[in-house]
Amino acid sequence: MTGLPRRRLLGFAGAGVALAGAGAAVGALSSSRPSSDQVRLTGAEAVPFHGEHQAGITTPAQDRMHFVALDVTTTKRAELVSLLQEWTEAARRMTAGQEAAEGGAVGGNAQAPPKDTGEALDLPPSALTLTIGFGPSLFDERFGLAGSKPAKLIDLPRFPGDDLDERRTGGDLCVQACANDPQVAVHAIRNLVRIGFGRVSVRWSQLGFGRTSSTSTAQATPRNLFGFKDGTNNVKAEDGDALREHVWVAPGDGPDWLVGGTYLVARRIRMHVEIWDRTSLAEQEQIVGRTKGVGAPLGQVAEFDPVDLHVKGKGGLPVIGATAHVRLASAEHLGGVRVLRRGYNFTDGSDGLGHLDAGLFFLCFNRDTGKQFVPMQAALAAGDKMMEYLEHNGSGHFAVPPGVREGGFWGDTLFT
Amino acid sequence: MTGLPRRRLLGFAGAGVALAGAGAAVGALSSSRPSSDQVRLTGAEAVPFHGEHQAGITTPAQDRMHFVALDVTTTKRAELVSLLQEWTEAARRMTAGQEAAEGGAVGGNAQAPPKDTGEALDLPPSALTLTIGFGPSLFDERFGLAGSKPAKLIDLPRFPGDDLDERRTGGDLCVQACANDPQVAVHAIRNLVRIGFGRVSVRWSQLGFGRTSSTSTAQATPRNLFGFKDGTNNVKAEDGDALREHVWVAPGDGPDWLVGGTYLVARRIRMHVEIWDRTSLAEQEQIVGRTKGVGAPLGQVAEFDPVDLHVKGKGGLPVIGATAHVRLASAEHLGGVRVLRRGYNFTDGSDGLGHLDAGLFFLCFNRDTGKQFVPMQAALAAGDKMMEYLEHNGSGHFAVPPGVREGGFWGDTLFT
Repeated sequence: MTGLPRRRLLGFAGAGVALAGAGAAVGALSSSRPSSDQVRLTGAEAVPFHGEHQAGITTPAQDRMHFVALDVTTTKRAELVSLLQEWTEAARRMTAGQEAAEGGAVGGNAQAPPKDTGEALDLPPSALTLTIGFGPSLFDERFGLAGSKPAKLIDLPRFPGDDLDERRTGGDLCVQACANDPQVAVHAIRNLVRIGFGRVSVRWSQLGFGRTSSTSTAQATPRNLFGFKDGTNNVKAEDGDALREHVWVAPGDGPDWLVGGTYLVARRIRMHVEIWDRTSLAEQEQIVGRTKGVGAPLGQVAEFDPVDLHVKGKGGLPVIGATAHVRLASAEHLGGVRVLRRGYNFTDGSDGLGHLDAGLFFLCFNRDTGKQFVPMQAALAAGDKMMEYLEHNGSGHFAVPPGVREGGFWGDTLFT
Repeated sequence: MTGLPRRRLLGFAGAGVALAGAGAAVGALSSSRPSSDQVRLTGAEAVPFHGEHQAGITTPAQDRMHFVALDVTTTKRAELVSLLQEWTEAARRMTAGQEAAEGGAVGGNAQAPPKDTGEALDLPPSALTLTIGFGPSLFDERFGLAGSKPAKLIDLPRFPGDDLDERRTGGDLCVQACANDPQVAVHAIRNLVRIGFGRVSVRWSQLGFGRTSSTSTAQATPRNLFGFKDGTNNVKAEDGDALREHVWVAPGDGPDWLVGGTYLVARRIRMHVEIWDRTSLAEQEQIVGRTKGVGAPLGQVAEFDPVDLHVKGKGGLPVIGATAHVRLASAEHLGGVRVLRRGYNFTDGSDGLGHLDAGLFFLCFNRDTGKQFVPMQAALAAGDKMMEYLEHNGSGHFAVPPGVREGGFWGDTLFT
């Protein structure tokens, strides 16, 4: 099995062709934008690992996600570097649909632990992307990185209403795995953790079962667990100017090693869905600032009609109220600030008090968290009526290095 | 929107046709059994709700699951009955791809809470099934059901090694939602919980991201988080004799109201994957009793070769060892006992000790738990070497009433 793709190539290639055809057929029958089903159906292929930027940021958001934050347990810089090199090789292989290492689950020495855990055998690449980030704590004295710490890799301030659980917060490193098959995403994280044994340990992790944002104009806007379309006005992969302005670290922004990278903010947001569900439709729409059905901004007709914060309704009051989520989160309200969102719905059992523990795992990428995410979240935390239904209980901030060149490794611009 | 399917019918019908074509094309290119991808691709359709038995038992196992156990908080029998009637109507609609009630998320009175939470708008039925069960505690004095309690609805004994968490154990009621889209499964459970507000509360719940058993000969065998194919010798939907013998409650078995029903056992089994991953391939295969690659019984060649417990290897010892999982779980070893398994892989974040909290949510259906699941689990708990890597920390036992007739409701044979 050495070196062979983990999946049966003929079957997969055949499926790819057939699926592309199916997508085209659906497209011809349905109107305008593709449904989320079509996106899923064409999602078995591999996403290139190498590039100027890491994949998993502007990649059309896959349906499922497994995110992990880790603590580095070794204190040796050389061991951290070799881990990043081993991880990169494994990531290069797994995103291509191969096993984590040569030999894999069953092709190696039977007297040794397998080089792959095996649960993704026979599954296609499923658009797996793996995206690494470095937390503020990585730049302490342990690895000689203090001088390379980006000034913008701040400790996030405490926002009004934050109820952070230390067991879901922070981390020296993070890896975001996104794929259209959750088994493929879980397999990837699990194998990276396995490879890291003795050098890193899991600090916290989160499974996201359904995407809540589109990152491409080719994707339909999915719905969050409040039942609303989420991320209609997201920064999209097709808008290169917006990506340059709001997402990618540019020369002169901060340390040179981070050019082409970005900053990732993760927030675990419990949504008190049981309370929300007892709120009237009219109130829900006032809180969001959009209609629930088609997702049009209040005062408009269609989902992608521009948000107009100045439309007046009865009594001369704005149709989109002062505390509406879309107003407070809008670029207009925030002086032009935007972020690229990439969140996922989650449900993690129950809370022991008779309710589901469900919500939104918010992930966003921005060029300067202190000037983008922080003022946005500060405005929402202070004024958004939706906050009554939310509980921010996990948080992380990570510098996301640029993409890996052929032969390079994750973070090589920082470590070499 | 009243009364209309929640999803755009034309688009969905078109997708169905195209997908069937895609499946056929893949089938023609690949060898022998279908891959799990094909099954997924043809999984957007609706599964009939009515029938002799409840759906979700012999239905080809869908890819995703959300399971909930609930406590009944009302003490009024009439309120419990009307809840079951409302739930049945909602289940009938949601499994058909409609919203939970007429009016739905946006078609009702805007000044009232919506009749559907909305997050499955635009999603196809996704083979959603909803399967209800009644726990032993439902048959106490509260609802006048003590005289109707099935003698076989036992409290499960404590098995060696059990480490049950009270917060993941028991329940007056359970609902298993299975679908090929997790958002559809989560939506269904969430709406049943919403409808039950004031009458039931969530006791525990579990999301399963990937199926670990096939329940149809048309499905490929999936892999569990130990990387092995799981459930090769499962009772399959196509084997009517085995279903009659091992799954369905027959006249004379117990209370008449349960004829056509079955018993559900749920076990949350944490798998210590980090320890397993440091075990050699040879040892893993000895523990399971099958090869990891193709899943053949040790001493055989192909996955579906019959397990032969008598093949001798070096030194005259059985190739399938005395403590191998397949031996202890085999019908031969257990005097003919079999169960229909329907489990799911899960991962629920981390354990706070540096490891993933991942494993198998074991679900099985059998005709007499005391004579089937209990001796099987007792044999495994006492002798299975795999137990060193497992931790049973959640458990439930439920009587699953028969299928609902047109106009009937869940449990009507018990309550009327």
